[in-house]
Order: sequence, then C-alpha cells, then structure tokens
Amino acid sequence: MRATIIHGEKDIRLEEVPDPRLVSGQDAIVRVVASCVCGSDLWHYRGIASSAKVPRPIGHEFVGIVEEVADGVARVKVGDFVIAPFYDCDMTCANCRNGFSTSCLEKGDWGGEDHWGHPVDGGQGEYVRVPHADGTLTVVPGGAPSDDLVPGLLTLSDVFLTGHHAAVSAGVTAGSTVVVVGDGAVGLSGVLASTRLGAGRIVAMSRHAPRQALAREFGATDVVAERGVEGVAAVKDLFDGIGPDAVLECVGTKESMDQALRSARPGGQVGFVGVPHGEPELPVRRMFSTNVGVRGGVAPVRNYAEALLPEVLDRTIDPGRVFDLELPLADVAEAYAAMDERRAIKTLLRP
Amino acid sequence: MRATIIHGEKDIRLEEVPDPRLVSGQDAIVRVVASCVCGSDLWHYRGIASSAKVPRPIGHEFVGIVEEVADGVARVKVGDFVIAPFYDCDMTCANCRNGFSTSCLEKGDWGGEDHWGHPVDGGQGEYVRVPHADGTLTVVPGGAPSDDLVPGLLTLSDVFLTGHHAAVSAGVTAGSTVVVVGDGAVGLSGVLASTRLGAGRIVAMSRHAPRQALAREFGATDVVAERGVEGVAAVKDLFDGIGPDAVLECVGTKESMDQALRSARPGGQVGFVGVPHGEPELPVRRMFSTNVGVRGGVAPVRNYAEALLPEVLDRTIDPGRVFDLELPLADVAEAYAAMDERRAIKTLLRP
Repeated sequence: MRATIIHGEKDIRLEEVPDPRLVSGQDAIVRVVASCVCGSDLWHYRGIASSAKVPRPIGHEFVGIVEEVADGVARVKVGDFVIAPFYDCDMTCANCRNGFSTSCLEKGDWGGEDHWGHPVDGGQGEYVRVPHADGTLTVVPGGAPSDDLVPGLLTLSDVFLTGHHAAVSAGVTAGSTVVVVGDGAVGLSGVLASTRLGAGRIVAMSRHAPRQALAREFGATDVVAERGVEGVAAVKDLFDGIGPDAVLECVGTKESMDQALRSARPGGQVGFVGVPHGEPELPVRRMFSTNVGVRGGVAPVRNYAEALLPEVLDRTIDPGRVFDLELPLADVAEAYAAMDERRAIKTLLRP
Repeated sequence: MRATIIHGEKDIRLEEVPDPRLVSGQDAIVRVVASCVCGSDLWHYRGIASSAKVPRPIGHEFVGIVEEVADGVARVKVGDFVIAPFYDCDMTCANCRNGFSTSCLEKGDWGGEDHWGHPVDGGQGEYVRVPHADGTLTVVPGGAPSDDLVPGLLTLSDVFLTGHHAAVSAGVTAGSTVVVVGDGAVGLSGVLASTRLGAGRIVAMSRHAPRQALAREFGATDVVAERGVEGVAAVKDLFDGIGPDAVLECVGTKESMDQALRSARPGGQVGFVGVPHGEPELPVRRMFSTNVGVRGGVAPVRNYAEALLPEVLDRTIDPGRVFDLELPLADVAEAYAAMDERRAIKTLLRP
C-alpha cells in the first residue's frame, strides 16, 4: 500500500510499504477513506519536536471502512464505517473508564508502536492496523455516510474534540464568557465547542481575516487582533476590566499560555490543549494570587466521540468547516506545506 | 491597647499601641474575643517571607464583638459577634460577586494597609479597625455564642475554609477519592472539608501520631507516613495503581506540589492552598500528558463563611479541634514558638 513517511525536516514522502496484517486477536484492518494533517504534525515537519526517529510513518487522524477483523473482535464488524481517535485504547482499563482514554494502560500511537511493541501504521496511508479495535473505534451507525459528512466525522478523530476538551477543561457552561487563544483549526474548534456548550460571549483572538470569518460562523461574538500585553488589555476591557470566566489555550507556546493566564478573571480557568513547547512552566505564584486554574492536556477524544457523533450526523454542528483544502494523498507533501505556510487552516486527504 | 508586633526573625512582642478609631464611613471597631497564629505567619516568623517591612502589626484571623460603627455601616450593628476573614473586602465588586473576594477591587490586609493606604491593625491584638465592615464581617446570628463554639467560629476566619477551598478547588464531591498532602491545621481542615463534601476515601499523609489521630477523627480512612517517591508509590497502591481523583496540596513547597502532582490519577485535580515558596513552577508537560489540573490559591473564605456557619453553630462539624493549645495574648511569643517547633498544631489566643 501507499503511506506517508516523514524523513526529516520538511521531507514528507508518499511511499510503497507492506500492507498491514492482523497481529493480535483484537486487531482490525481499516481502509482509510479520509485522513488529514494535524497542527502537531507540523511540529515534527518543522523539526521542532525531533525526538522521534526518522524515517517513520506519520498521521494520526482517519476515518474508514473495516476490511478485516481478528477472532477476538466482537463489536466492530467488517463493512463498518469507523472513526479512529488519534491513539489506540482498550476502553476497559481504569483510566479509560474514568474518561481519560489518552492514559489507557494499553495505549499505542499511530506511526509508532502498540502497547506490545509491534509497529503500527500511520493514519496518512491507505490502510491501518488498529489494535484492540473494539475499544479504539467509534462505529458510525447506518454504514458509510454521505460524502459531505466525511469532513465533520473526521474532526471527531482529533481536532474538533480537542477544541471541545479545551472548552470542557476550562469549565465552559451555559452563559460562560470565553476567550480563545489561537486561531488554528483547534482554536476554531474551541469556538464551536464553546458555542455548543452555551457560552454567552466568545472572543476569538485572531488577526487573519479568513479565520476571523470562520470564528464568527462558529459563534464568536467578538474578535481581538492584538496579542501580548495589548491583547490582554483588549480582552479585559471587554469583560468589566477583570477578564472572562474561561480561556482556551490552543497554541502551546510560552507566550500563548502567558496570555491565557493573564486574560482570565480571578477565579477563572484556563483549558489548555496546545502541546507545550518552549518550557512554558506555569507561574504558580500568579495562579495562587489570582485563583486562576489550569486544566487540560492531550484530549481523550475517544471518550467524547460517541456523545457528539449524532450532532454531526444530523448536521446540528458542522465542525468539518475547518478543512479549507482537500488534496489527494499523492499530494501529501503539499498538504503539509500549505498548512506550514498558513495557506490552509487544515488539509483533508483522500487516498 | 495591646497588639502583637513582629520585629524580625523569631522576634514577636506584645506592645502598647494607639487604640484604633474610625477612619472612613464604612468602618467598624471590633474588640477581639479570640485570635490565632497562622501557618503563613510562621513564614514571616522564620524570616523566609521577609519582603514586608518590620516592625509591623501581625495576625489576620480573629472573631470579636462590634464596639463602634461609622455612619455608613448598615448591616453590622454594635454588639454583634462577628467573624473577620483574613483580609477585608467590599463584597459588592465584580470579583466578590464572582465568589473571589480575595481579589476584591478594594481589598486590604490586616497589619498592612486598607485600599486607600490607611494603616490597618493586625488581628493578634485587643481591637481592630475593620474597613467596609458591611462587606468584610460575617455576623453570627443570636449574638455571642457559648464559649466552646469560639474555636470553631474562629476557623471560619481562615484555616477551616482554606482547607475547604483546597477541597472545592480539587473538585471533591460525593464519592471522591482524596489524598491530603500536609498535616498542619490546613491539611487537617482539608480532611474534614473532604469528609463534609462526601468523599468516599481520604488519605492523610502524616507521620506525626497526634496529627494522624486528629485526621482520623476528621474522617481520614487511611494514613500514609511515607513522603516523596515512596509516598507517591504508597498512594498509587491504595488506588488501583493509578491514584486518587483529588489531591489537596496544603504545604506550599516544591516538594509537596511535586508529590501532589505525581499522586493524582490521570484526569485528576490538585487543589492547592499552600502559599507557594521556593519557586515551585508547575511542570506543564507533565500536566499535559496526564491531564492533571491545578486549581486553587488564596482562599476566598468570606464567600464561604455564611454557608458553613450554621454547621459550626449546630455542632454538625467541629473544625475548632485543630487548636491544641490556648494561651493568653500576653504569651503570643510562646504561641509562635510552639507552632514553629511543632509542639502545637495551632494556637488560639485570648486577649
């Protein structure tokens, strides 16, 4: 089959690799219908998160059709249309049952290894072996959906539910005042998630017109273009001089976290999902004096997927709007370049 | 009047100072019935938090009788028995209304200055001028309580409600599994607060027999004497190898916060109320990978006091048990020494 391999900084290639086959009794083989490029893939692409060995398969968001299942797979059937989270998990261990499948005691990573040390395919390819398929995969009821629903379903693999996790972690609820730091696909998803949770006012921090426009479509009531000290001042001004209840940190730099912490009102909460880079250790004295809490991390999307799936299927929400570029898998290198150069918010790939 | 003045490291003196008088139209003068020494006073006593100028008045927890009120005071009456929080606040600003009176826009500090720069008495004295008395003071219904209730009422000034804030910040609710780091009066209060909130299992980390005993009286189901790596391992063992839902950090050192963060289960929450010392900046990558949240800070006790007061008055809870030494105000230096040398958990002072 063909699969995407990262060879180093800005070196993404589609290559011929062996077809996956069942390894354990809990595996399934999924034929990928759509995959995409994640903001966190770009850290690797830019050589910033370079601890992982190259060359290796890449990509961790995909939806597809189950082609084959091992003997021990009971819930997932051949022919099912399924959504994979950006990791694999058993959904039976204590952490999965607590709602944090990202800390599954048998977790594995696409493009890396499963819990038992067997290689696992990346998501940006034609087929993927899925460990403990009954835990990992969300089955879309009714079989293959209409084609226009595929982008929205694909966002349940990571991006929309990561934005949702930021909002949940920040404690967004009916009437909340919210600021979203970051206008990438995750930040925009955080706007939509906050709208869905009933937020009363949502400020998108963005200085890019197309992203501002999508933020407003997703429910942002205000847009603030300033950053840093000026951004904090502008946000405080919007909320009685004290700041909003909730801030969604969707970038992962020291600057963005600092801006988030300074923006929240006393007793407010920062929900963070940006993968931390640049050692942004948190200023505990500031948190102490202001009672601003910090909660979040790698989003347990598998725990959220089934609850939000019906709203995508019945078109109550359209999180797939974050995809503004669609390319064939053969053009995967361009998919990365377009996002890296901010020509695209998020790129969808079809094998 | 006589009041306690700190002159420097381990130099606490009871001195004759001018009687307070009304300054603003919102003031009251309170005759102190009981006050006490706080763990945070000890940081000053030990010369660790030495930024404040000396000599200066000290003490920030007191209950007493209202002796005089200014013309603008409407709610509080002469003769009322009142509880002061460890700061003064108006209870009308946006932060007070949000539940965070510790961030009152007109906040002042006992022993320091009020919002307008006028000196304010410390709590360890005979009288205290109370700015915006209608906001600051919690009135005990029915006038002066029976003497055995005074210690419990005094804990609503700071210590019990600081433990309560740790539990609330950690998200403790019915059935929660809880670990309390710190066996000082705040940590022990955190145990009682967790019991009151319905926690299912509460581990007190303590290696002092009298404190272990009081923790068990307050509802601790388990005691762990180990600290550091061994302490974390012992706690994980008690909770399926993954840790408890909530950890109350009631110390404020880098070591205690580290232990708290490592003890919580994935997706758990640390509620912290120990005043941070020693630059314990929080490890954001660890928080990201485990989804352990951190929330807390200086406790908005004024916002909690009225809700919990009835349970003290009707003896449902007895948070005053944290006082294991009572001295006359004349012996205030010994009150500090006894706590500093861990001969007492917490010392109550009567003028």
